[in-house]
Amino acid sequence: MASIYELGLDKNDANFVALTPLTFLSRAAQVHPERIAIIHGDLRQTWRETDARCRRLASALRKHGIGHGDTVAALMPNVPALIEAHFGVPMSGAVLNALNTRLDAEGISFMLAHGEAKALLVDREFSAVAQAAVDRLGRELLLIDVDAPELALPAVSWRSYEALLAEGDPTFTAAPADEWDAICLNYTSGTTGDPKGVVYHHRGAYLNAVSNVLEWDLPKHPVYLWTLPLFHCNGWCFAWTIAARAGTNVCLRRVDPKTVFDLIRAHRVTHYCGAPVVHSMLINAREHAEGIAHRVSAMVAGAAPPASMLERMAELGFDLTHVYGLTEVYGPAAVCERREGWSALPLSERARLNAQQGVRYHLQEAIAVMDPSTVPADGETMGEVMFRGNITMKGYLKNPTATRAAFDGGWFHTGDLGVVSPDGYVKLKDRSKDIIISGGENISSLEVEDVLYRHPAVLAAAVVAQPDPRWGETPCAFVELRPDADLTAEALIAFCRERLPGFKVPRAVNFGPLPRTSTGKIQKFELRARAGSSRAIDS
Amino acid sequence: MASIYELGLDKNDANFVALTPLTFLSRAAQVHPERIAIIHGDLRQTWRETDARCRRLASALRKHGIGHGDTVAALMPNVPALIEAHFGVPMSGAVLNALNTRLDAEGISFMLAHGEAKALLVDREFSAVAQAAVDRLGRELLLIDVDAPELALPAVSWRSYEALLAEGDPTFTAAPADEWDAICLNYTSGTTGDPKGVVYHHRGAYLNAVSNVLEWDLPKHPVYLWTLPLFHCNGWCFAWTIAARAGTNVCLRRVDPKTVFDLIRAHRVTHYCGAPVVHSMLINAREHAEGIAHRVSAMVAGAAPPASMLERMAELGFDLTHVYGLTEVYGPAAVCERREGWSALPLSERARLNAQQGVRYHLQEAIAVMDPSTVPADGETMGEVMFRGNITMKGYLKNPTATRAAFDGGWFHTGDLGVVSPDGYVKLKDRSKDIIISGGENISSLEVEDVLYRHPAVLAAAVVAQPDPRWGETPCAFVELRPDADLTAEALIAFCRERLPGFKVPRAVNFGPLPRTSTGKIQKFELRARAGSSRAIDS
Repeated sequence: MASIYELGLDKNDANFVALTPLTFLSRAAQVHPERIAIIHGDLRQTWRETDARCRRLASALRKHGIGHGDTVAALMPNVPALIEAHFGVPMSGAVLNALNTRLDAEGISFMLAHGEAKALLVDREFSAVAQAAVDRLGRELLLIDVDAPELALPAVSWRSYEALLAEGDPTFTAAPADEWDAICLNYTSGTTGDPKGVVYHHRGAYLNAVSNVLEWDLPKHPVYLWTLPLFHCNGWCFAWTIAARAGTNVCLRRVDPKTVFDLIRAHRVTHYCGAPVVHSMLINAREHAEGIAHRVSAMVAGAAPPASMLERMAELGFDLTHVYGLTEVYGPAAVCERREGWSALPLSERARLNAQQGVRYHLQEAIAVMDPSTVPADGETMGEVMFRGNITMKGYLKNPTATRAAFDGGWFHTGDLGVVSPDGYVKLKDRSKDIIISGGENISSLEVEDVLYRHPAVLAAAVVAQPDPRWGETPCAFVELRPDADLTAEALIAFCRERLPGFKVPRAVNFGPLPRTSTGKIQKFELRARAGSSRAIDS
Repeated sequence: MASIYELGLDKNDANFVALTPLTFLSRAAQVHPERIAIIHGDLRQTWRETDARCRRLASALRKHGIGHGDTVAALMPNVPALIEAHFGVPMSGAVLNALNTRLDAEGISFMLAHGEAKALLVDREFSAVAQAAVDRLGRELLLIDVDAPELALPAVSWRSYEALLAEGDPTFTAAPADEWDAICLNYTSGTTGDPKGVVYHHRGAYLNAVSNVLEWDLPKHPVYLWTLPLFHCNGWCFAWTIAARAGTNVCLRRVDPKTVFDLIRAHRVTHYCGAPVVHSMLINAREHAEGIAHRVSAMVAGAAPPASMLERMAELGFDLTHVYGLTEVYGPAAVCERREGWSALPLSERARLNAQQGVRYHLQEAIAVMDPSTVPADGETMGEVMFRGNITMKGYLKNPTATRAAFDGGWFHTGDLGVVSPDGYVKLKDRSKDIIISGGENISSLEVEDVLYRHPAVLAAAVVAQPDPRWGETPCAFVELRPDADLTAEALIAFCRERLPGFKVPRAVNFGPLPRTSTGKIQKFELRARAGSSRAIDS
């Protein structure tokens, strides 16, 4: 029998509305219409103007027959039009597929085909590769040219973005009928096999955008610098977060340290995000930081920040928050939240604690480590890291098999291996494929890398398995030194020998720049190939 | 045909979880187990302990056969057990009905009967009235005695709260199956007729709790003083908000200004909420504020803060945020959000702006003024204030007629009259019944009250209609003067005459304490009766 609380108390238009981050745009435009939403070069665009342009975009797409369930792809660096696309495209009912600007024509073409894109918005810097991709695709789609005035490139024959907006209605209004509707499509940069299309929903985008505020204590009206690519997990949902706070987006075509420091100084940037390489780059270009006296908060994900990074960031007056996640959980969905008493600890201990991936995001339901059920919180028992909750993808597009496997047992499987500390914080140990098996013993490549990073001359390090006739595999290190640093392989191996059991010490050290993905992740598969590992192929 | 985004991308246990504020408790206990969750007298209770006690409560209620869809009532001031009930009761699946401690046995008995309460948690200070209410009820229910050690009252024969908790399992876990499930029941203090039971759902409680963080820029680990009754719209959802921030709840049996200042000083309280009367009370007892040097943020609702209140709060170093709402929208669901440039304006202008009810809460969808469709934003055209969005009740318990009327046209009807300023801020003009009709002209009682409040000797003022043989009605003022103030009716009328058109000037002024509801609202129906208004009965 229904309880008294289930009779005559149904959802209706007054008390139930689909959750969507689009609502943050309209609120910012209503409450703070004259605040600056976007800065790019000389451009200063208010929230009122941004809101109107996003509505024009949505309306114009509708006029071109694009709506619910259609895909609109975008190939752009962090320019204003890509921020606008994060609102305008979903407002039309379509799904935004932001493409990595480092892709080649083949990669782009694959994604346009798999995602069935009906339109493609292209920053003029990338028109050649986009044209090549479309040529390969072999079908028509709506091509939009977004001018890049700072590059003074010749015009392209496609319809211009501004002409498209001019077709649209600045008062257009639409909301998703269902918060489970798709909002974005993001292809994971798989190292082999075809990329998988991760589908986000409005509900998750809304909740992660708000979680970003909660994790970071992000105040109203932050000034946010776009060092993190918007095409990477939709910039960890920060386009929506900054709208929710009626903040200012400072755009950035290319991340170089002098430009970053200049923008931080000129606009009093308060917040930015990035992979460790972004922060390292800034630390190594500290001479450009002069005159920046205000506090800057940074978020780092992709790898744990080493002690030296925490220390040098603190010297800059930058505060670093370590978050963890994957494309499938909208970027970060865990945070190494600082606890009472941590700030009083010595740096090395703080660094050890901050290197943990941590605890669930406020509005994510759970993170756990399982093998096959939850492992004990002893800091030692390894298992696979899992997520569960509303900040988790709908699934992989047109790939029910991969979707089912990813959600097996009611948890999202990250493929990362970790442990749980006695205080409940998750710490990554390695991805299964990053474990080196030497003489039957498991070696965590992360553990060896942690030691390498402690050497003051080391800028970046990666350790992979190298085939060995006697041991099966041995650790092989690839190391990028700091500028002007002077270090021999022998000296570094000796450094490791003092800090690791013998079988974990790298047998070989190779110096040189490390291959990285467009989002700054070190490409271990490439290093495995160089080391001649048999696992280079299937990893 | 379903789009590609609707195939094989269904909700499952990994990517969809019902929204509920209960999740904030488990996160606080996991991430900040040793932080103090509750202070009351000498009690210091951590989040770990609070979490365990709430789970015990839920588990014990289940053992007594109480679960999904049942009602558990509570008659308590702002003591720790009432905070625990906000988690433990809904965790059992039941619905919490926090009762106003100023109710008499008849009122309590009505609510226990209408809400079909299966259990009643009673603070020992209120056992006599609770017993009388249960005697009237004429049926059995589980009666729980919550000790009030600071009052040293004799024991009651009912099962003790601590004994109940001892029956429960501190590791009990349960979550609502559906975020639309009821979480709380709140009776509106109607002035005539039977009170209506407003039903809240988990989704709305979760979203309003988070909205409180967003509106107030509430940082992690606030110290929150419970000056606002927890039985009033569940303390505007702040029990859940403070858990979401892993903050500290400072409990308070009775609000008197010296105690409030002493607690603020002793525990470095950072935030509190209250009706205007709470803030007035503090301002008038400033001598007790000595030694409080830190910044305190206060929220006010129930009436717009007059200029003098803003000024005197600022002198205390207290910052005041003006919010607006009703029981039906979980307490506040609109906020007078400060805009760029306001802080540079003269006090009188700031006061005028801050007196607006403002804009929608971040996670509420909309506020509007309608007559019958949206009125122009001209600051003049009056209409009824409406809300729409997820921070809106399920409806009135067992009252489908009232529910349908409240939600007519897909908006929640507040019954308040207001206008929209050109910048989109809603400003209340009056409740329909507060309009005085004199010689065919409408007089807003709020407008007259605003003038009265400007007189430095006036502590509180209310204006109602008084029958008049010639004009139909004339304004009649009831005024509470500041201690030591000396003012005649003639002088106050002359003060009004300088500031209002003649027909709006009160014809009569009555000095004396104003009758107030338990939440500090002035009881106009009582004043109307005193003024002999024909509308005293139906208002």
